[in-house]
Amino acid sequence: MGRVICAGLGPGDPDLMTLKAARAIGTAKHVAYFRKEGRAGQARRIVEGMLNPGAIEYPMEYPVTTELPFDSPGYIDALAHFYDNWANRLATLAATDDVVVLCEGDPFFYGSFMHLHSRLQGRVPVEVIPGITGMTGCWNATDTPITWGDDVLTVLMGTLPEDDLVRHMSDADALVVMKTGRNLPRVRRALERAGRLHDAWLVERGTMPGQRIARLTEVDPQDVPYFAIVLVHGHGRRPEIAE
Amino acid sequence: MGRVICAGLGPGDPDLMTLKAARAIGTAKHVAYFRKEGRAGQARRIVEGMLNPGAIEYPMEYPVTTELPFDSPGYIDALAHFYDNWANRLATLAATDDVVVLCEGDPFFYGSFMHLHSRLQGRVPVEVIPGITGMTGCWNATDTPITWGDDVLTVLMGTLPEDDLVRHMSDADALVVMKTGRNLPRVRRALERAGRLHDAWLVERGTMPGQRIARLTEVDPQDVPYFAIVLVHGHGRRPEIAE
Repeated sequence: MGRVICAGLGPGDPDLMTLKAARAIGTAKHVAYFRKEGRAGQARRIVEGMLNPGAIEYPMEYPVTTELPFDSPGYIDALAHFYDNWANRLATLAATDDVVVLCEGDPFFYGSFMHLHSRLQGRVPVEVIPGITGMTGCWNATDTPITWGDDVLTVLMGTLPEDDLVRHMSDADALVVMKTGRNLPRVRRALERAGRLHDAWLVERGTMPGQRIARLTEVDPQDVPYFAIVLVHGHGRRPEIAE
Repeated sequence: MGRVICAGLGPGDPDLMTLKAARAIGTAKHVAYFRKEGRAGQARRIVEGMLNPGAIEYPMEYPVTTELPFDSPGYIDALAHFYDNWANRLATLAATDDVVVLCEGDPFFYGSFMHLHSRLQGRVPVEVIPGITGMTGCWNATDTPITWGDDVLTVLMGTLPEDDLVRHMSDADALVVMKTGRNLPRVRRALERAGRLHDAWLVERGTMPGQRIARLTEVDPQDVPYFAIVLVHGHGRRPEIAE
């Protein structure tokens, strides 16, 4: 009997994958990954050249959304059906062999794998291999500590209402804002209202080819960055002390 | 001319180190690491068996604190002097060879290396290799997603005043509390006041031998856990949608 092994790929640079994930990926007979229809997919791109030459690939293509809003009941149903089907297929494969599912970043940190993880419980053994989160790759790209001393770090989604963003941004020392993209104008307004805009950085494609690091104030407001995270570094609530 | 390379070691399991860090550590001629006087040190323990047999080791022992409180001006001075001295020694070594500094977790996330990083700027090239943070190792140990959907995650230090802890704990979906140890009773009271105590987990020595996972309500209040993090998982502010 096999297992479903979800391998966290880390922030994008293949060299920042763990020893454990690299070994699982290099020896897997079955490799599955999420992608949009018609795209190569970021997860698959990260492992280029690392797969066993005989590996069988299973691109798990998200349902097409052209005709339905992301948050409509119709699309949410389509997505549930999609996860149900893939959970069934992976469970069938794992009845005889290990199957490796590729996941960007860390699988348990805002990862899509959780929708398969919950559906596979009690059916086949599931193992998750942690990865470096995308945000960790991004703050490393700025070559500056994100937090020290007693700093409070808050991680926010750019999809949140503006007033919620402002409240959290005002109360934390260090900030990470994910799901930016088309939400960037709102994120920017919230940072300005919280008095944090001038300390904010945009990191696009952190640790990957085409990486860009810019002060958010210098980013064109019309720009819709891809794989981008907004960061505000902490400054240490007091000198760090040895424990 | 060499470099000072800070290698993030990840959460504790050596197999969760990155390919890049493992390569730097396995080939280094000079290897430095922080530890308390008279202790083996957690960072050194993680790389046991991985060092080049000819490597020269530099244990950087924190000044002894028996006679001074951690936050006294005397101790802060001793610590500054300690970092100054080691920055000088590492810069001297790096004039001719690469030196690898071992750091648990991710070096830019509450890491002590930042005190050397700032002192080395402009003197020698410094490279930092990201690692999986300790908290990522801990939430993976619980085999449950820490965040999904639009969850807000806040990272807090157990050293903060109780009212600050309560305010942050009440306003976030998912929580990570670090620097627990002797602060655990206050962390527990704050979680109770915020109505989050019954969802809180204690993870001690996450991903390491002797790992322990327990509901915080079931931990003896007299217990002072070591290398421990308190976690509260998010439940998803709304169904996650594909982007």
